[in-house]
Amino acid sequence: MSTEKLPNPNENFSEWYNQIVQRAELADYAPVRGCMVVRPYGWALWENIQKSLDDRFKATGHVNASFPLLIPQSFFEKEKEHVEGFSPELAVVTIGGGEKLEEPLVIRPTSETIIGYMYSKWIKSYRDLPILINQWANVVRWEMRTRLFLRTLEFFWQEGHTAHATSEEAVEETLRMLDTYASFATEEAAIPVLPGLKSDSEKFAGAVNSYSIEAMMGDTKALQSGTSHYLGQNFAKAFNIQYLDLQNQLQYAWTTSWGVSTRMIGGIIMTHGDAQGLVLPPRLAPIQVVVIPIFRSEDEKSTVLPVVEQVKKQLAGFRIKVDDRTEVTPGFKFNDWEMRGVPLRIEIGPKDVANNTVAVSRRDKPGKEGKSFIPIVNLDTAVGKFLVDIQASLLEKARAFRDNHIKDPKDFDEFCKVLENNWAFSFWCGDAACEAKVKELTKATTRCIPLNQSDLKGKCIVCGKPAHQKAYFAKAY
Amino acid sequence: MSTEKLPNPNENFSEWYNQIVQRAELADYAPVRGCMVVRPYGWALWENIQKSLDDRFKATGHVNASFPLLIPQSFFEKEKEHVEGFSPELAVVTIGGGEKLEEPLVIRPTSETIIGYMYSKWIKSYRDLPILINQWANVVRWEMRTRLFLRTLEFFWQEGHTAHATSEEAVEETLRMLDTYASFATEEAAIPVLPGLKSDSEKFAGAVNSYSIEAMMGDTKALQSGTSHYLGQNFAKAFNIQYLDLQNQLQYAWTTSWGVSTRMIGGIIMTHGDAQGLVLPPRLAPIQVVVIPIFRSEDEKSTVLPVVEQVKKQLAGFRIKVDDRTEVTPGFKFNDWEMRGVPLRIEIGPKDVANNTVAVSRRDKPGKEGKSFIPIVNLDTAVGKFLVDIQASLLEKARAFRDNHIKDPKDFDEFCKVLENNWAFSFWCGDAACEAKVKELTKATTRCIPLNQSDLKGKCIVCGKPAHQKAYFAKAY
Repeated sequence: MSTEKLPNPNENFSEWYNQIVQRAELADYAPVRGCMVVRPYGWALWENIQKSLDDRFKATGHVNASFPLLIPQSFFEKEKEHVEGFSPELAVVTIGGGEKLEEPLVIRPTSETIIGYMYSKWIKSYRDLPILINQWANVVRWEMRTRLFLRTLEFFWQEGHTAHATSEEAVEETLRMLDTYASFATEEAAIPVLPGLKSDSEKFAGAVNSYSIEAMMGDTKALQSGTSHYLGQNFAKAFNIQYLDLQNQLQYAWTTSWGVSTRMIGGIIMTHGDAQGLVLPPRLAPIQVVVIPIFRSEDEKSTVLPVVEQVKKQLAGFRIKVDDRTEVTPGFKFNDWEMRGVPLRIEIGPKDVANNTVAVSRRDKPGKEGKSFIPIVNLDTAVGKFLVDIQASLLEKARAFRDNHIKDPKDFDEFCKVLENNWAFSFWCGDAACEAKVKELTKATTRCIPLNQSDLKGKCIVCGKPAHQKAYFAKAY
Repeated sequence: MSTEKLPNPNENFSEWYNQIVQRAELADYAPVRGCMVVRPYGWALWENIQKSLDDRFKATGHVNASFPLLIPQSFFEKEKEHVEGFSPELAVVTIGGGEKLEEPLVIRPTSETIIGYMYSKWIKSYRDLPILINQWANVVRWEMRTRLFLRTLEFFWQEGHTAHATSEEAVEETLRMLDTYASFATEEAAIPVLPGLKSDSEKFAGAVNSYSIEAMMGDTKALQSGTSHYLGQNFAKAFNIQYLDLQNQLQYAWTTSWGVSTRMIGGIIMTHGDAQGLVLPPRLAPIQVVVIPIFRSEDEKSTVLPVVEQVKKQLAGFRIKVDDRTEVTPGFKFNDWEMRGVPLRIEIGPKDVANNTVAVSRRDKPGKEGKSFIPIVNLDTAVGKFLVDIQASLLEKARAFRDNHIKDPKDFDEFCKVLENNWAFSFWCGDAACEAKVKELTKATTRCIPLNQSDLKGKCIVCGKPAHQKAYFAKAY
């Protein structure tokens, strides 16, 4: 690890981000432009995200499966809006086994088409519905401007694809998964996301309605962190997904899709990270506690190491690592684990052993404020409490920051001004022309429209016409 | 599910296999030739395989990561044997984002090249070694003849890639993983594999030595079920993986790679399956116990269902499913779950309730032999014992079948004859010409050469020259 300081996030957030990703060894650049290698520490974080989401999917009746990477190009021409949305982003295989292919194959950018095709084979009767399938997969989109985790040619995600007998059920599923994402982000990643409906101009190509969870990053820009789409009968009609209903009549099914990707890792970095590096929420951290033995002589070593062993056993219920490297100093180790965002550091030196205590330092409160000496007796209980407290503090801090940067400007001038370094929560008439004007003047877009806004009356912040809903406006990743 | 009988495996093993895969809903054909959809039941089986292998990898110090799907074509030209081995099988992306690419990109058929490239960036000193990384990934090989699970264009696997400071360590790692695979196959999949060295003509393109675990299928053909490769310095030299040793001298690293794929699912089907369908080893079965309520009236229903609920709670420590479908008969359900290979079936009817028992049927012993009536008190203990016993019985049965079909022919004529429906375990001089002759005359190949054959002296079964090792010969998938 380099010992140079990170760039100041308040001065150069973008470079601060890039360096954390590399120096915490989360990911690296691949030899192919825009592709990434997710390194073991980053992948362990992703595995924890996967586990936590997967448990939630299974608890709501979903099962996993795996659909093919390669999709016939013609499939993308069957749903009008889908083809327009995705055509510019496709990676196309034209040669297989040394021969030119008769029909080129697309590497999936998303799987509505291929899954729709299979559902049309599997679904015969209302008894086959609902189908509630998720897959963990890699997808490829030919992006021009890429950033590790935030936008890469290949990325990793889960994509849920469900088919239902009625529109009501499909809408219910769409909102259930939006809610699942919101609770995951809030409870596990400590990111206080705002859920809501996407505007027509921001929705998924092929959806009737798209919903998203939107998060505020440390530079106040928005990160769309998960989406859930109600697809109506668009894909069912394009792929002939039909079933016989109770009256033996053929009906088109109603479908949904929803996804969260490795982008979530970018969101975690940019929500919680600080000038010392990454800060990980304990519930997702690959290492929750790092233990650093401190000694300067063989004598001290033989005093300290048995206690380290004892503490290691005592804390076996946590994700713990003992850093017993001998080629670097304790100071180097402190910086290293701070860079990697480990929530809790425990130092054990000869004095600690004499006092039957250990020194515990919280990553979320650098310096003296976060340091305390804790008795070894019942250390496991104390560590458990620390981790719960850190998790809650991270969420609270992020929520305060977010609320501090969501403004309610009184007119369009103020609206444009606040959008430089804030979000605006403002009335919007729903007209795409107003969105376009905002984007042109401020680079901000509508992020989402909160659900259940009833009986609201106001005037569009852009055109002044009557408006019945408020939307979040922000510059976004 | 179709109610037609399966083809007799003794008459048409191949069609029997194809139908089980489809009718047990393990996998389906994708719209692209040679690609498969792994359906939820098949994927759940794969997830159990993954979990079990992953635990073994982590217990031996490995970590997971993820390397890119797309590899510059030029990477395949850097290792001479590797390029010859894989060139005919590549799927090539030539168009990205609507533009022709300057350098075509290959979809990984295996990742030695891209991982070698990254290791050359990450490894500087002996302190960075060993690197012990595994990835769970999809790969694509442009195969001509495909079979679901056994050989598909896209398949799923894990590939471990390690780098070491010494040849000894790398060899040790190669053999450790071979052993890991053998114990996984035997203990979890109940497949009594035979581990050993591959001959030069059968080894991985680019390896110094390849090792495999070989399994005997129900038709006596061999299935290579996992491989572990000692790559020497071949890839280190091709990709410049160098480190500074203790004396500050630049040295090339020594690398290994090893993999097990979704092919293992094909191996499980063809090792344990019978005329009624799939038979799954309890340790990997997605559903270990299926409970079928039996009633013919509302009265009986209200007698039976509370006991079903009670049993469900009692067996919560197992992977259990209650089949409460009302649109099909119990007889249909019996056939359905037999086809899907669920190890244990529990029927609960009014008579059982009256007797405080349930009827338990073992999938591995169809009919009366495998059926018994078990008291509901302590049913969980009884079920646990049944599952352990089924697991052991499956292994024992497969081992007896295997040993029964490995012959030690006395001369080349008998050798050729036994190879029609058996394996031969015979002396071989090591000459590739002898292997070629056997292949031409019998279609059989050397499968592997068991390790630790010392002080053996004999005559090659093919040419009669002195030989110091015996090899398994068999027709293979």
